[in-house]
Amino acid sequence: MEITVFLLVFFTGFLSAQSKYIAYNTSQGVVEGKLNVHLVAHTHDDVGWLKTVDQYYVGSNNSIQGACVQNVLDSIVPTLLADKNRKFIYVEQAFFQRWWRDQSEVIQDTVKKLVSSGQLEFINGGMCMHDEAATHYIDMIDQTTLGHRFIKQEFNETPRIGWQIDPFGHSAVQAYLLGAEVGFDSLFFGRIDYQDREKRKNDKSLEVIWQGSKTLGFSAQIFAGAFPDNYEPPPGDFYFEVNDQSPVIQDDSNLFDYNVQERVNDFVAAALSQANITRTNHVMWTMGTDFKYQYANSWFRQMDKFIHYVNMDGRVNALYSTPSIYTDAKYSTNESWPLKTEDFFPYADRANSYWTGYFTSRPAIKRYVRVMSGYYLAARQLELYRGRNNLRPKTDSLGDALAIAQHHDAVTGTEKQHVADDYAKRLSVGYVECPLLNISYCPPSEVDLSPGKKLVIVVYNSLGWRREDVVRIPVISKSVTVHDSNGKEVESQILPIANASIGIRNFYAKAYLGKSPSATPKYWLAFLASVPPLGFSTYIVSGNKTTVVESVVSIVSSNGSKSGTIEVGQGNLKLVYNVHEGKLTHYINKRSLIKASVEQSYSYYAGSPGSNTDPQASGAYIFRPDTTNATKFEGQENILLPQNPLTVLRGPILDEVHQRINPWIYQITRVYKGKEHAEVDFIVGPIPVDDQIGKEVITQVATSMKSNKTFYTDSNGRDFIKRIRDYRTDWDFQVNQPVAGNYYPINLGLYIEDNMTELSVLVDRSVGGSSIVDGQVEIMLHRRLLYDDSRGVAESLNEEVCILEECAGLTIQGNFYIRIDPLGEGAKWRRSFGQEIYSPFLLTFAEQDGDNWTTSHIPTFSGVDPSYSLPDNVAMITLQELDDGKALIRLAHLYEVGEDKDLSVTASVELKKLFSDKKIGEVTEMSLSANQERAEMEKKRLVWKTEGSLVEEPKVVRGGPVDPVTLIVELSPMEIRTFTLIFLT
Amino acid sequence: MEITVFLLVFFTGFLSAQSKYIAYNTSQGVVEGKLNVHLVAHTHDDVGWLKTVDQYYVGSNNSIQGACVQNVLDSIVPTLLADKNRKFIYVEQAFFQRWWRDQSEVIQDTVKKLVSSGQLEFINGGMCMHDEAATHYIDMIDQTTLGHRFIKQEFNETPRIGWQIDPFGHSAVQAYLLGAEVGFDSLFFGRIDYQDREKRKNDKSLEVIWQGSKTLGFSAQIFAGAFPDNYEPPPGDFYFEVNDQSPVIQDDSNLFDYNVQERVNDFVAAALSQANITRTNHVMWTMGTDFKYQYANSWFRQMDKFIHYVNMDGRVNALYSTPSIYTDAKYSTNESWPLKTEDFFPYADRANSYWTGYFTSRPAIKRYVRVMSGYYLAARQLELYRGRNNLRPKTDSLGDALAIAQHHDAVTGTEKQHVADDYAKRLSVGYVECPLLNISYCPPSEVDLSPGKKLVIVVYNSLGWRREDVVRIPVISKSVTVHDSNGKEVESQILPIANASIGIRNFYAKAYLGKSPSATPKYWLAFLASVPPLGFSTYIVSGNKTTVVESVVSIVSSNGSKSGTIEVGQGNLKLVYNVHEGKLTHYINKRSLIKASVEQSYSYYAGSPGSNTDPQASGAYIFRPDTTNATKFEGQENILLPQNPLTVLRGPILDEVHQRINPWIYQITRVYKGKEHAEVDFIVGPIPVDDQIGKEVITQVATSMKSNKTFYTDSNGRDFIKRIRDYRTDWDFQVNQPVAGNYYPINLGLYIEDNMTELSVLVDRSVGGSSIVDGQVEIMLHRRLLYDDSRGVAESLNEEVCILEECAGLTIQGNFYIRIDPLGEGAKWRRSFGQEIYSPFLLTFAEQDGDNWTTSHIPTFSGVDPSYSLPDNVAMITLQELDDGKALIRLAHLYEVGEDKDLSVTASVELKKLFSDKKIGEVTEMSLSANQERAEMEKKRLVWKTEGSLVEEPKVVRGGPVDPVTLIVELSPMEIRTFTLIFLT
Repeated sequence: MEITVFLLVFFTGFLSAQSKYIAYNTSQGVVEGKLNVHLVAHTHDDVGWLKTVDQYYVGSNNSIQGACVQNVLDSIVPTLLADKNRKFIYVEQAFFQRWWRDQSEVIQDTVKKLVSSGQLEFINGGMCMHDEAATHYIDMIDQTTLGHRFIKQEFNETPRIGWQIDPFGHSAVQAYLLGAEVGFDSLFFGRIDYQDREKRKNDKSLEVIWQGSKTLGFSAQIFAGAFPDNYEPPPGDFYFEVNDQSPVIQDDSNLFDYNVQERVNDFVAAALSQANITRTNHVMWTMGTDFKYQYANSWFRQMDKFIHYVNMDGRVNALYSTPSIYTDAKYSTNESWPLKTEDFFPYADRANSYWTGYFTSRPAIKRYVRVMSGYYLAARQLELYRGRNNLRPKTDSLGDALAIAQHHDAVTGTEKQHVADDYAKRLSVGYVECPLLNISYCPPSEVDLSPGKKLVIVVYNSLGWRREDVVRIPVISKSVTVHDSNGKEVESQILPIANASIGIRNFYAKAYLGKSPSATPKYWLAFLASVPPLGFSTYIVSGNKTTVVESVVSIVSSNGSKSGTIEVGQGNLKLVYNVHEGKLTHYINKRSLIKASVEQSYSYYAGSPGSNTDPQASGAYIFRPDTTNATKFEGQENILLPQNPLTVLRGPILDEVHQRINPWIYQITRVYKGKEHAEVDFIVGPIPVDDQIGKEVITQVATSMKSNKTFYTDSNGRDFIKRIRDYRTDWDFQVNQPVAGNYYPINLGLYIEDNMTELSVLVDRSVGGSSIVDGQVEIMLHRRLLYDDSRGVAESLNEEVCILEECAGLTIQGNFYIRIDPLGEGAKWRRSFGQEIYSPFLLTFAEQDGDNWTTSHIPTFSGVDPSYSLPDNVAMITLQELDDGKALIRLAHLYEVGEDKDLSVTASVELKKLFSDKKIGEVTEMSLSANQERAEMEKKRLVWKTEGSLVEEPKVVRGGPVDPVTLIVELSPMEIRTFTLIFLT
Repeated sequence: MEITVFLLVFFTGFLSAQSKYIAYNTSQGVVEGKLNVHLVAHTHDDVGWLKTVDQYYVGSNNSIQGACVQNVLDSIVPTLLADKNRKFIYVEQAFFQRWWRDQSEVIQDTVKKLVSSGQLEFINGGMCMHDEAATHYIDMIDQTTLGHRFIKQEFNETPRIGWQIDPFGHSAVQAYLLGAEVGFDSLFFGRIDYQDREKRKNDKSLEVIWQGSKTLGFSAQIFAGAFPDNYEPPPGDFYFEVNDQSPVIQDDSNLFDYNVQERVNDFVAAALSQANITRTNHVMWTMGTDFKYQYANSWFRQMDKFIHYVNMDGRVNALYSTPSIYTDAKYSTNESWPLKTEDFFPYADRANSYWTGYFTSRPAIKRYVRVMSGYYLAARQLELYRGRNNLRPKTDSLGDALAIAQHHDAVTGTEKQHVADDYAKRLSVGYVECPLLNISYCPPSEVDLSPGKKLVIVVYNSLGWRREDVVRIPVISKSVTVHDSNGKEVESQILPIANASIGIRNFYAKAYLGKSPSATPKYWLAFLASVPPLGFSTYIVSGNKTTVVESVVSIVSSNGSKSGTIEVGQGNLKLVYNVHEGKLTHYINKRSLIKASVEQSYSYYAGSPGSNTDPQASGAYIFRPDTTNATKFEGQENILLPQNPLTVLRGPILDEVHQRINPWIYQITRVYKGKEHAEVDFIVGPIPVDDQIGKEVITQVATSMKSNKTFYTDSNGRDFIKRIRDYRTDWDFQVNQPVAGNYYPINLGLYIEDNMTELSVLVDRSVGGSSIVDGQVEIMLHRRLLYDDSRGVAESLNEEVCILEECAGLTIQGNFYIRIDPLGEGAKWRRSFGQEIYSPFLLTFAEQDGDNWTTSHIPTFSGVDPSYSLPDNVAMITLQELDDGKALIRLAHLYEVGEDKDLSVTASVELKKLFSDKKIGEVTEMSLSANQERAEMEKKRLVWKTEGSLVEEPKVVRGGPVDPVTLIVELSPMEIRTFTLIFLT
């Protein structure tokens, strides 16, 4: 029938669209002999930054940033269920725990299966991805432990991988302590110096074996990888969040714009490019970035297709992977890796962009975190002694708050102001010690001690040594006396409170409380307290003393003489001041026979607003001084302030030297009779910016020491690392920023030395510091800046405090401590006094009518056998009761190899005496984060090959197993040993 | 032990965060006596707009708009599974079908269960949400049928609800034909005139009973609701797409910022506000907007919480609902509703913002759609005659392309240029008739007819009547003769092709084909063809004719005389031109004795760039002329163009008058000997915009008729609706835009009348038109504009055609048709000639050596009994073979009640004779979209109460049931009856 032929010409075109369900083959594993591209699906969820942690979790405040972690975790579940080959890693347990609490049992069971099958893997596993510069190692351990133990408890899993992809530089302590000692098999991170990165790309040395501790050496090394660029997908358009603009793979032949081959080519090109800078035929692609996977399927749909089509193409092998799988693949190649020691500080991402400002940014938050850290350590001890009980508040919320505060946009000061406020609010929950004692506001102590009324002060010592120290509280009357719980009067001293302090007190008390304080105390009462290890003593303050031990106040001025000096100090330490210049000139220790000329001054760097050649401004992250030289406040300024001469207070317990440096810097230097260091109490602020110049205020301590460009700074308050000015160990350093590029993070302190002496400065919080000139050290105390530094926070670091509508720049108050020792003798002070800074006496107050306190309360207590205290070189950095009733303890040797001639030796701790009134049933040594037995961890440890390794590794000493009968724990230098104990009740 | 008391003071703050899984109670249904807030979760997915339909589906080109429909459909499945109370509606089947094809059987089964349980409901259910102004009713039916039959086939469901939430005004045909006749229980939409909306809010008359057809009246009425504002959530921050900024409900007491009560209050306030303008205690919230629910869970998580907490609050009742549930709830209240007749055109959203520009925007696309529509109708007939076969291409892809082109940002011209190109590309697939015949480019006809070579032309007639019409093809030689298949020579005429046409031909052929045409034909060959109903005839063109019937060409100019006239027309119709002015002056019909003075001219409105008082520009959507008066091209301009006088061609078949109106407008007026209308062939463009003025070109036909502000325009090519200038039936109209506010959409034509005559103008595509002055009608032919009109498309409507880098404004070529009849006699021409415009002859060409064609091919064919043709008042608007082998036919009565004295009566169609060579086994009457039996549909129809209804409804006549023996179908005025037939083979 020829009609058919005719009609044929009417029809052409596509055949109708056909059903085309494609079962993508995503099952590929590693293939030997091919370049393996490990696709690691991940989201990076800041535990607070532009929004608060809770805002990020629930997805509120999206006008600031579109981010909702609940979406990520909700959507990942069906997405992983849809294909058993898909894998995802999750990192930040603060978010995960919030989510977990909200889930039904059905979802919880599903997720447990996903975790147990390896589809969902917890990486890093702390509550947050902590910072590595502004954090103290005890906080790092605590926050990691919180996350790790939760994972262990709910999922019976131990994270294998360190994943510090965003922090702004990487510390030695992170590598060896929070890496190797936690049992991690590898550690990955994104940010290293741009010069370093270039060299490592050329050398294929982005991946290394990192020995972070010179003391523990190879026994605490870890495979570590810096990413080629950042923690995002490689260049080539591989972003697949909802609404992202990378081309999706269009593989439906029924539709227009089929593009499979183009996209496969893009993939192969990116893989080959990365292979060029990587050892072995394994490369990792970090498929995700900040707060991505809000709809997880939109990424996995594309990755499914890539794996399917790239493997069909066959040039490279693509697979769903995790950092664990990647690490195992690397390990199995038997490759040798370059050795890396020390750390990755400071971090610069461009020539004038040194991320060394954040070492100091938001000094108030940094101090608050440190205070709470010491408090949390003590509070857990007390909680253990008392016994945990679900019916009453526990230390958990404080633990959570502190954990979150370690985040790399929290204690760093790189968060928005409202987020900083949120961290502070969280910390304030659970803390009842006089929170404003630092500004001499403490109503419990400011009571009217009229006849018969007494103030009871219970003083707790969380250290493992008996401690004699001076307690200082504000009082309204100087007619007070102090007795111990045996009724014996103890030595005390009354000091007038400086006007500068009163001013701060009144302003900040009103700012924080919304009302002015009712009474204004005029005096500090100082008295000597003596408290047993892990125990408390009670002191009673009563009024109506007739003979007051008041300080002798003298106002010293030059009287025209240029050579006049005064000397302060009732004990071995004497400080000598030049009266004419109002300046410290000498440090004299009568015992050690040190006599050093020393100056201490304040200066500021003008924060750059950006220059013509480089718009980089100094800001929350970045320190970019406008000029290399700091501007000093001195001489002329004091003369302009005749009303503020040098004021000296002397008394039996301590002497004080008060100096007004300029209208907004005030300093009190204290020399205690019984101590050989100078304690400086500074008040800095509000930093004036009327001149439109942001300022970064430092203090410098200068000596004539020949320190030869060399200085030492601590790593997270633990190991000291040698720094050489304008030099990097790992590459030929091009100096662009002579100041900012020589700044390092300081948590415990820094020191310099020459062939005779060493000068140490210890700090009360995280700061940035350096030695820009030989013989001199400097630390940065406060920063007020007017420009954003373009790293995302989009606010200038211009902290203010407001009363109603009236705002002023934030004032910072704090302490640092100076000591000069004969060469080789400084460590003892740095280590043991460092513990005292971290763990001050903990005070509580009660009013008492009559004398009934001591009859109704136990006046003194110690958890430790009265005959015992910890060795001088050991601190107990954790003592807490776990949910399962066990006790968790950590003992830390405080010294590095060779640091002190007496104390850098193995120490022994007698657990039985440490817990004198408890019977120890079982002692189990655990990994640092207490989520697995140490022995099990050691058994699994991967042994990597190091390039050009010494034939003989240096010997590393570690304490042996704990004898189950004697229960004596050996600690070798720098060892931290973690145990769980069962107490038999 | 008093240590307890002491320690207590150390601890306070929150109890630790507790597990808090909340099983939200979302099961609430309608509650009597409360205000019920129906939450309708929906996404509005444009089937092309800023991106192409495929780009929207796969989520590519996100830099233009973040939108991925695949995400919506992927994510809705687990989201609905997570809670059986959750409900979602899905609308656009073009997307759904793309998705469905990609799914595994497991997912398909899951979705089938979700649909069958009512959790997922298909609404509207066409391939797209078609436009209602620029669409032809046949296309609307076809695209709805495509979607509905898919839903029926895959899910055994029939959509209940019309959901035209975005189209820019709403047509009567939509309400009664694509609403009531489809079996919808209600129709919802978002866009009505802002003045109308205000009045309806005050009257609580946003919800009405709409009788769209005056002929079918109450028998085709529907419950219709305009939304209070748009199709988004109500004011009060209820947007919950990923990254949206509305406050999420934070109900986790462990976290900060708990806000349940605030959000419940917001909800209740928004509900009460809407209740104030709504009858009954049911309000609907459209929870969604364009391309939302990319991660469906992010909305449902919040809606779960709202339902849970709002119902705990108890002031109002919140429930998951659908428009079906809402409609049933409304119905069950037994409320009376206002009656609405006519339509909702034109639409203005603000005073100077009349959405009447899009009636004409992109006239080339509009024409292409109309051409393909007629072709698709014919092609399906041929496919049925031939038999569908999966092994060869079918009409399906053309059907899909046409369906998509009906979208309210497709044929409307309101899409971006690249998207318009995509629609055109889709339409081009499956079309093989000389696609450039309209620009006289048709290589098959341009063959060299050297001795022995012949051109075979097969002419198909898709109408149900025998048709005599003139075929016109370009030829290269004028020495040709035409014979029918019996060898009989047929009358033919040679006309030279105008230079204007040659110019377009050469330019556009090169633009579309990338190369210049090889030969340039100089002539049109016109000949009379006669083709049986639903059949074809064959004509053979051969060369070497000695006596050519060439047209007589005369170039007419005024010779200085102002009164000189010429007359053209070989039959009853004569057109008289004033030679001096070069203008048409009179229309004379010798049969009907009409002699009317008439002028026809071209003018333009300057498109407003926005004024000082209102920045609204004229653009793709909006027509805002800069002044009320159009600028006419005439007189002076012709004098300036002496090289282009009136050119007249005369011949035996037709006369042509060629006029160059200005350098970029050329017009040919044709008067066929056998026809009584004038056919105008216009070439407009490139519209010059060197003066930086956008121009909207109209043609006006002016008479002296006293039309009294009244004119009539068709609704989607079907019913004519009476329009009164500066007047609205439903409210007291405030006139702001005297031109734009009087424009209406035209698909078939418009007419005016006085007490003697009627003037009709019919069109070849969708245009906007009006009667701005009594006695005159105007239609807009082309628009070129320089500003975006701020309704989202973000492009100016400045269409260009480029050859390599050289671009010129788009030229539009087309036709309109003018006729003047005695009063009451115009309908016959409008209706039957309207069918001829829609369904032109379909031509195919073959070259032939010798005379073997007629021996090897059937030269003529008709599907209809030779003795039979359809009645004059009935058209067959569908004849196609369905996938199940049944035939689908639709018969449409072409006349309204009272429209024609002879033809506005019930007609009968004899199916047996219509399918003369097939045996009909079973005839089933179906709903219009053929997804259910008509009887079943009628049984379910809801009967609504109308406010102030007449005691006696006007009588409506409908054809009775089809006698199963005679198989005669009765059709009353305006009836369209749809049947499936089984042919016994």
